[in-house]
Amino acid sequence: MPCLGPGPETVDRAPVITCWGSVLEEKRMTTKTMGPPPRAFPAEGMLRLIRSGAILDWWRQLWTKSSFRVLPPSEAGRDQKARYSHQAVTGSTSFVTNLFSGHLVPENVFPFPSALSLEQAQSLQAMLDPCARFFQEVNDAAANEELGSIEEATLGGLKEMGCFGLQVPEEMGGVGLTNTQYARMVEVVGMHDLGVGISLGAHQSIGFKGILLFGTKSQKQKYLPKLASGEVYAAFCLTEPSSGSDAASIQTTAELSPCEKFYILNGGKIWISNGGTAEIFTVFAKTPVKNITTGEVTNKISAFIVERSFGGVTSGPPEKKMGIKCSNTAEVHFDNVKVPAENLLGGLGKGFKVAMNILNNGRFGMASALAGTMRGVILKAVDHAANRKQFGRTISSYGAIQEKVARMAALLYVTEAMAYVLSANMDMGVTEYKLEAAISKIFASEAAWTVTDEGIQILGGMGYMKEAGLERVLRDLRIFRIFEGTNDVLRLFVALSGLEHAGEELSSLQKRMATPVREMETIGQEVVRRVKRKVGVPSGISLQGTVHPDLDDSAALVTKAIDLFGEAVESLLLKYGATVADEQFLLKRVADAAIDIYAMAVALSRASRTLALRQPTAQHEKLLCRTWCQEAFQRVRVTLLETRSPRWEESFADMKQISDALVRNKGTVATHPLGF
Amino acid sequence: MPCLGPGPETVDRAPVITCWGSVLEEKRMTTKTMGPPPRAFPAEGMLRLIRSGAILDWWRQLWTKSSFRVLPPSEAGRDQKARYSHQAVTGSTSFVTNLFSGHLVPENVFPFPSALSLEQAQSLQAMLDPCARFFQEVNDAAANEELGSIEEATLGGLKEMGCFGLQVPEEMGGVGLTNTQYARMVEVVGMHDLGVGISLGAHQSIGFKGILLFGTKSQKQKYLPKLASGEVYAAFCLTEPSSGSDAASIQTTAELSPCEKFYILNGGKIWISNGGTAEIFTVFAKTPVKNITTGEVTNKISAFIVERSFGGVTSGPPEKKMGIKCSNTAEVHFDNVKVPAENLLGGLGKGFKVAMNILNNGRFGMASALAGTMRGVILKAVDHAANRKQFGRTISSYGAIQEKVARMAALLYVTEAMAYVLSANMDMGVTEYKLEAAISKIFASEAAWTVTDEGIQILGGMGYMKEAGLERVLRDLRIFRIFEGTNDVLRLFVALSGLEHAGEELSSLQKRMATPVREMETIGQEVVRRVKRKVGVPSGISLQGTVHPDLDDSAALVTKAIDLFGEAVESLLLKYGATVADEQFLLKRVADAAIDIYAMAVALSRASRTLALRQPTAQHEKLLCRTWCQEAFQRVRVTLLETRSPRWEESFADMKQISDALVRNKGTVATHPLGF
Repeated sequence: MPCLGPGPETVDRAPVITCWGSVLEEKRMTTKTMGPPPRAFPAEGMLRLIRSGAILDWWRQLWTKSSFRVLPPSEAGRDQKARYSHQAVTGSTSFVTNLFSGHLVPENVFPFPSALSLEQAQSLQAMLDPCARFFQEVNDAAANEELGSIEEATLGGLKEMGCFGLQVPEEMGGVGLTNTQYARMVEVVGMHDLGVGISLGAHQSIGFKGILLFGTKSQKQKYLPKLASGEVYAAFCLTEPSSGSDAASIQTTAELSPCEKFYILNGGKIWISNGGTAEIFTVFAKTPVKNITTGEVTNKISAFIVERSFGGVTSGPPEKKMGIKCSNTAEVHFDNVKVPAENLLGGLGKGFKVAMNILNNGRFGMASALAGTMRGVILKAVDHAANRKQFGRTISSYGAIQEKVARMAALLYVTEAMAYVLSANMDMGVTEYKLEAAISKIFASEAAWTVTDEGIQILGGMGYMKEAGLERVLRDLRIFRIFEGTNDVLRLFVALSGLEHAGEELSSLQKRMATPVREMETIGQEVVRRVKRKVGVPSGISLQGTVHPDLDDSAALVTKAIDLFGEAVESLLLKYGATVADEQFLLKRVADAAIDIYAMAVALSRASRTLALRQPTAQHEKLLCRTWCQEAFQRVRVTLLETRSPRWEESFADMKQISDALVRNKGTVATHPLGF
Repeated sequence: MPCLGPGPETVDRAPVITCWGSVLEEKRMTTKTMGPPPRAFPAEGMLRLIRSGAILDWWRQLWTKSSFRVLPPSEAGRDQKARYSHQAVTGSTSFVTNLFSGHLVPENVFPFPSALSLEQAQSLQAMLDPCARFFQEVNDAAANEELGSIEEATLGGLKEMGCFGLQVPEEMGGVGLTNTQYARMVEVVGMHDLGVGISLGAHQSIGFKGILLFGTKSQKQKYLPKLASGEVYAAFCLTEPSSGSDAASIQTTAELSPCEKFYILNGGKIWISNGGTAEIFTVFAKTPVKNITTGEVTNKISAFIVERSFGGVTSGPPEKKMGIKCSNTAEVHFDNVKVPAENLLGGLGKGFKVAMNILNNGRFGMASALAGTMRGVILKAVDHAANRKQFGRTISSYGAIQEKVARMAALLYVTEAMAYVLSANMDMGVTEYKLEAAISKIFASEAAWTVTDEGIQILGGMGYMKEAGLERVLRDLRIFRIFEGTNDVLRLFVALSGLEHAGEELSSLQKRMATPVREMETIGQEVVRRVKRKVGVPSGISLQGTVHPDLDDSAALVTKAIDLFGEAVESLLLKYGATVADEQFLLKRVADAAIDIYAMAVALSRASRTLALRQPTAQHEKLLCRTWCQEAFQRVRVTLLETRSPRWEESFADMKQISDALVRNKGTVATHPLGF
């Protein structure tokens, strides 16, 4: 599989990595000593009270009494250029990042972005049809699985269609697709055969993506043509036995030879997709790096392009896996491999940045591929529901089935929206998309899992049989919640990155609050917004006019959710300060809420466009969007309550104790009901 | 697999079956015309208000204005003797059944029931150890799977240990275990190899269970000895291509020969566990039955004991399944099979009752087997969490992992409690356990699924590899949510059976309310309880004194949940009348809440006993119980709100429309984000 690696990051140090520890500086504080706001504030009296200064005093007190501080912002995003003007205090255009401060910055999501020119759309359409037919008529997913590799006829066809170099520039033998075009193509692959999808993805989405993104001209010229043609395969070598989520802890080393012409590579990688079949590897290894100023030598990760033909590269037998069986997964060992110095990729010591950028950049394709998977599953489930009769009626007439089908449709709707918002943003030059990419990966992998699981349930006994073709999909899907950053680590990544941003903004506001008289005019609006939110009054953010009027009710749920979320985040920051980074029970919930709010937003954007264009499916999409927002809002509300309830705080402490006891006992602790 | 059949029932007609339609008589009414209670009732003024008659008037108005009516109770439970005295109006001792009327009838759950005599416990213990060692040292689950059948050495050992006739009386060559003893034994099997578990379960838990439960003396003597020794295998033949959940619609026929010595059996069954290997089949077929009074002939289902040696019995090749691969699953065809008339099982036309009783009776074993599975998975997950280091610490020190481990422990805790409450009740002669059995099956199959899925997630990439042994378990588990009554149909069964009971009780109360002066004294307490509940005041039910005082807080959540549940059920009955049977969106939620409340109760009972006995694990179990109740209560609250919110009503209507559109369109409807 592509990589059982960590969350994404764009910096040359390891905040995702230390995110298990603390991105934020350690400094605990609590609001407990500050007391409640001076009185209950009825909505209508709000502005009067704010003007009188009573609330403001209480508000300021919240901060000045606290020792809340955050680290200066990470380098993440420093060198990123925002395409649009900034509305938020700290200048991010990311919808998700801004959520954490309770800001609504719609520009990357509304109106539904599209980055396809007419010409691009036409060339894409011309490719799609033959590709879909090819997968229907030539590729045989069951046969590939049985074989443990992709059938020769399929491989030949894929190469002919250019599927091994979809995003490689045409002048280097590729098809030169944009991200949006690529997303649409892999949707077809994902619909028919995830094993093939993984083989192709491991090759181009991460295997040689580093060369595309960071390669020198000569590196590109040397490697891309034969990779794009499928003459040779590529693999991405990051994960090691002791280093999965904690990618920065890899042990593979690369030392410059005395003649300085080679790096000598030693180490072992595991679970490498295409590891047994690839000729070209992007390998990450520790290299000694000397600080020019201080002279100090430290180990930093660097990336290398390694050919199997260099010698000393061996790979293990194919791993036996639950699914994606036609894709090769194997260990790869490097034993004194002489890597020419010019095969260093992205600069000495820049390997972590290279790795994280590759993973970050590759996520959009996963969302669209899985959207394809869901579409295929839904076809089968609906077909069964429409034709299977029990109790004298087709089962599609029963509410128990209808609820499943509707939820499957909504999950697909949101996943598609996320996938194409992301690819369009990337194509339009938006660079700050790492949280949206992480959320898309989390959401798509879980949505596809749920959809397929429910599809099997709808088919009943037939769903459990190989013949129906759904059980293979479920097995294939299980790895998507694990690889390229487990969903658990990605959730922490989303929560911590967002909290860091919100913390910076709060810190900045706090400083300016220290001299309120001078700054009051510039920060007034922001403070009023936060105070309103704190006391449960709508802060005034709105999507009216941004969304189609038919969806105003759903939009109101989104803005209400953003208010609740911003307020919850602020409370957590004020209560825990930097130590919030250690509160993983809370971080998980913060991430869950952020995911749901983003999911509501993209659904709203998509349905708004369809309604505005009066497309024939507009009313249907309105229903999809409305039910989704209704469900997601309730989840957000409940989830956020869990971040601030003393009962839940107690439950979290209980759970920690329970888990600790099991770990100490090496298994279950409770006395068996029978006593033995 | 055992049977991809319907929900359980104990009657000779098909209320589970028609439960998709209507168990309750069609009669819709609404409370909308009745207006709210006369004023807001503060808790302290409640009794005074009740005495004044103001609330009572409003309450009576609710009913007398309504046309609420229900069918007379089904025959279900008619012939069942309650072991304990009855507290509830309609005299049920079932904890779950009574929940639906908001009654707390603790006697089958509190104190934690135990039905093992010292001698039985000792003989069980003597069997357990060798059996566990056998599964560790001889049985090889991976090898069985690879082979597609159980290795000879294992089969031999299982036969030697008596595992093919665990509940067959000793005088017929069996081990003569009680239900509790059997449950504990299959826990060991479930921990090590679910495929073996299915083979053994299909044989004795359903395959020849009919002979045990309904066989004549000569049928027992003829068949049980060779079945108990494992000389021949048994299979349960109910499911047909057009008849899964709708078991009553089977097409297989059995007609009496002119000489009246044989039934001629014709038809085909599918997905029959042991179908290809069994010699003895319990087969369900339609038979013409003449009504003695009217002379009318109708087709009713009858059960037969069929031997492969009768001739005309053929079976198909083994089905290729997602999991439980060492168990044989095949079609079985009956072509003019001459079944001796004396092989009729349970009486002519009594086959549906036989089938439902077998399934109902077999469910307790599934819960304990799956508890064993969970225990095994938790061992592996905890071992990994305790030893895997990332970011410089073992991953068990991270909240994200701790939450998973704690939740896994709680799910096992509840499943075990359910399994052994059920088996003890059955051993003590409680006959009214069908809802508890259905809930145990639903809960255990979903808990095991979640636990194993999370176990894989904790192991990360390793969890996806065959080597770790978890992916096989997940594949094996997928069928448990489908077979022997899909969890969806069982949920409807739980909700409808409970609503039917509550409806009867409400109906009875309604009648007596019509003459309140005469009946007031006898029904006074019940009416006061309901009125209190209606206006959000605790109805007065309590578990204080029943549970250990350390758990009083959790117990209060249970009684609060029962109040909320009883009130929600009553509101649904008053609003929908008999047509509530068609409201599957609501029925699902009612069932979910009932499941959660029952799960809270069994956890409370189990932890109370441990605390009372001051066992070393008492404090740990207190934490398990407390966190479980906290989570489950919140779920119940949210779920029940969904049954009475106009917004959700709208969502349900939307979902129906969405699903209908997909069915009409034979797939996804929404316009693709790119338009093509």
